[in-house]
Amino acid sequence: MSSVLIVGSTALDSIKTPVAENPRMLGGSASHAAIAASYFSLVRMVGVVGEDFPKSYLQLYKRRRIDLEGLQIVPGKTFHWSGEYEANMNNRRTLATELGVFENFTPALPVSYQGTAFVLLANIAPSLQHHVLDQTLRPKFVVADTMDLWLNIALADLLKLLKRVDGFVLNDSEAQQLTQEDNVFNALRKIHQLGPKFVIVKQGSHGSILSSPEGIFLCPAYPVRNLVDPTGAGDSFVGAMMGYLSTARGSIEKNIRQAMAYGSVVASFCCEGCGVTRTARLTRAQIESRMKELRELTRF
Amino acid sequence: MSSVLIVGSTALDSIKTPVAENPRMLGGSASHAAIAASYFSLVRMVGVVGEDFPKSYLQLYKRRRIDLEGLQIVPGKTFHWSGEYEANMNNRRTLATELGVFENFTPALPVSYQGTAFVLLANIAPSLQHHVLDQTLRPKFVVADTMDLWLNIALADLLKLLKRVDGFVLNDSEAQQLTQEDNVFNALRKIHQLGPKFVIVKQGSHGSILSSPEGIFLCPAYPVRNLVDPTGAGDSFVGAMMGYLSTARGSIEKNIRQAMAYGSVVASFCCEGCGVTRTARLTRAQIESRMKELRELTRF
Repeated sequence: MSSVLIVGSTALDSIKTPVAENPRMLGGSASHAAIAASYFSLVRMVGVVGEDFPKSYLQLYKRRRIDLEGLQIVPGKTFHWSGEYEANMNNRRTLATELGVFENFTPALPVSYQGTAFVLLANIAPSLQHHVLDQTLRPKFVVADTMDLWLNIALADLLKLLKRVDGFVLNDSEAQQLTQEDNVFNALRKIHQLGPKFVIVKQGSHGSILSSPEGIFLCPAYPVRNLVDPTGAGDSFVGAMMGYLSTARGSIEKNIRQAMAYGSVVASFCCEGCGVTRTARLTRAQIESRMKELRELTRF
Repeated sequence: MSSVLIVGSTALDSIKTPVAENPRMLGGSASHAAIAASYFSLVRMVGVVGEDFPKSYLQLYKRRRIDLEGLQIVPGKTFHWSGEYEANMNNRRTLATELGVFENFTPALPVSYQGTAFVLLANIAPSLQHHVLDQTLRPKFVVADTMDLWLNIALADLLKLLKRVDGFVLNDSEAQQLTQEDNVFNALRKIHQLGPKFVIVKQGSHGSILSSPEGIFLCPAYPVRNLVDPTGAGDSFVGAMMGYLSTARGSIEKNIRQAMAYGSVVASFCCEGCGVTRTARLTRAQIESRMKELRELTRF
């Protein structure tokens, strides 16, 4: 079976929404992406947690058959993020970020991971994304995700990274910040000039847009009627996309649209539960059922 | 050939954008909708203009073969709207509204219009939309558009209208205002309860969503790379949709998705010129070419 290597944050999230308050849930970009990818392929995870990391969360990874050889468990506290969503869930506010063991994290790739063909550099400091990429052996397809924080404090590192990856994923406000372009299609064009052949701009409930040598793809979002917690939706999207891509036969160009649609579907499940609660308990049949629906929702 | 009856505003628009300032252009919901519909079917327009209305604008309607028997030309000034778009074109601010001859307008339907099967009540005061509807003879399909102003000052009239129409079109902020629902899918459900069988929420550059007895349709927006002036895009969307629907064989259910896609395409042209300058000079071949592209842009 094919594999995806995923590096990113492995965290405890305390999230307040208008309807719920959940302390110290399993979170982080690597957790969300790995769980999403696990429905399609084997996942090799790279990250770090502290000794306070609940055993039940390790078991959850294992239930999803995620390879934890690259997950370091070290003395100290697990990265903790707490945030709050506003009434309409459109805006979120960071209340606290405690880096904990991430402060001195140097990812070391297990030998068994080094030849993985598909590499997802999920959202984490670009220097760590570089460090993981340095240890891989000629991967077939490398995608990086990011967040506004790195545009603000690590732009040079990020720009260097963009010259080393095949694909780059960011959300619309980040694309605007990076390019100073209000028009997303003009922003996409400018981001290609920074390096990546595949650029995906995520637009939340409005779906996402791919720009590639084959042109533009407008990827729909699967309708979320009961939005509980959008945290991790973007990570789930790109995780599922990479998981599917690693198993699909044929070129990336041929498969990436369908991969993004799978990403939309898994992201929709993510939004329907707190943290990973919904995505950790999916079946492939539930995913396929929404894929079928998504085709019907967009047919004309 | 089939016909669409369109009532709405016929106006002079003075529009400031970050790149241009254009005084007293041909505008108004009926003008935009009628020109868009004219690429698909004959259009019977109902409206009123003052004696100051430029002859060249009447000639423009005629070049698009729009039936002007229902357009009153009366002493006084044509309705004049002036507005300004902010830098990113997302927000617009009304600078002045001079109702002019619209203040005492009572639409009188020419006998030749009364049996028109497809009726578009484009954005105008709900009382005028009622008045036109009163004079029709068992139309097959009636769609109403609106704007936030009528939600604020004529809600009772609008709610009565919703019980008389088959379809209702509004934008996402209006849907939220009308239903107090942040989630668009929940808003759609609530709007059905107010009467209309077909509800369409427009989301600007993010496309539009139809809710009907056949379920949800996520209609893509055609990518606009060179946004010049979005005024009238929503009117063009619904005008093209009704124009296409009036000519298509089979049920509304069967044809409305394709009709909305045509609406997206004509709306994209509208955004690429000031006022109606781009939409008034289209060819059906240009429209079909973007339809083909839109299918390719959304295929997965």
